[in-house]
Amino acid sequence: MKYCSNCGSPDLTHQVPKGDNRPRIVCGNCAEIHYRNPKIVAGCLPVWEDKVLLCRRAIEPRAGYWNVPAGFLELGETVEEGAIREVWEEAEARVGPLSLHTVFTFTNYYHVYIQFIGELMDGQFGVGEESLESRLFGESEIPWDEIAFESSRFALRRYFEDKERGVMQVHIGSV
Amino acid sequence: MKYCSNCGSPDLTHQVPKGDNRPRIVCGNCAEIHYRNPKIVAGCLPVWEDKVLLCRRAIEPRAGYWNVPAGFLELGETVEEGAIREVWEEAEARVGPLSLHTVFTFTNYYHVYIQFIGELMDGQFGVGEESLESRLFGESEIPWDEIAFESSRFALRRYFEDKERGVMQVHIGSV
Repeated sequence: MKYCSNCGSPDLTHQVPKGDNRPRIVCGNCAEIHYRNPKIVAGCLPVWEDKVLLCRRAIEPRAGYWNVPAGFLELGETVEEGAIREVWEEAEARVGPLSLHTVFTFTNYYHVYIQFIGELMDGQFGVGEESLESRLFGESEIPWDEIAFESSRFALRRYFEDKERGVMQVHIGSV
Repeated sequence: MKYCSNCGSPDLTHQVPKGDNRPRIVCGNCAEIHYRNPKIVAGCLPVWEDKVLLCRRAIEPRAGYWNVPAGFLELGETVEEGAIREVWEEAEARVGPLSLHTVFTFTNYYHVYIQFIGELMDGQFGVGEESLESRLFGESEIPWDEIAFESSRFALRRYFEDKERGVMQVHIGSV
């Protein structure tokens, strides 16, 4: 933020407002306090038989790396709706009833991933505009060194562990 | 947003950027696209013996109403850290290990509540600056008509149902 979005002034400073305990961007002209908050990334790991569906990213960051379909939650969506939309946009796939699986915070990037598991409908999928490729992977085929984000590695590891134990759980993680 | 936070121009319009499918606030001067996203509210229902701890809000919105301790997640926090901080700020209480309990989206207000359950340490609590009062309530004592937000009603109803059945689960809701 270089200019105040309320009055257009460039007189912005970081200071702790009265009654607050953290520095915020405050406008010296109109006194507006500009809060910044973490963003939600909604996603879903589509599963089919003993495999999971991943997409290879066509866009930065981490273009060319494999990822669980996920993206920024939009205004007016529930987290489930966001996850379903992302699976369609990235993998041209539909998923059945969603089960919450992971909540993963990137403290340095200010992103909180809320990721579900859902069964791929009819095993059908395609390649969305933001993807280079989509593919079903069994556990032994996962390209661990080519996974885009730690949130996806976390979701995949927990998924296969849960499957091994026969109980899907909800997992909280962070980095 | 009345002025572009990138260049200070008042020339802002809602339009669908190329390659996008939703209207965004776009600056006619510098072409910056301003994205808006839902915010995360992190909270925790502190439990002690057969009761739960609620706080009566000192601040708007819904001042005077009872609520599960919760507030906006700050930059750099994990969701668990945010929930623990809010319990301290609102109820001057510490909670033991957290279990994820509800994820609740307010689609019209663009808020996603991520709420945990945690045992109150030593049954101790106080009254934080943003609260008028804190109190432990058994199920039959919950002031259902004076609960501040639907997210809290949802969390409380699910908590007592889960307790009745003897199994705490994770619940997804929205309004």
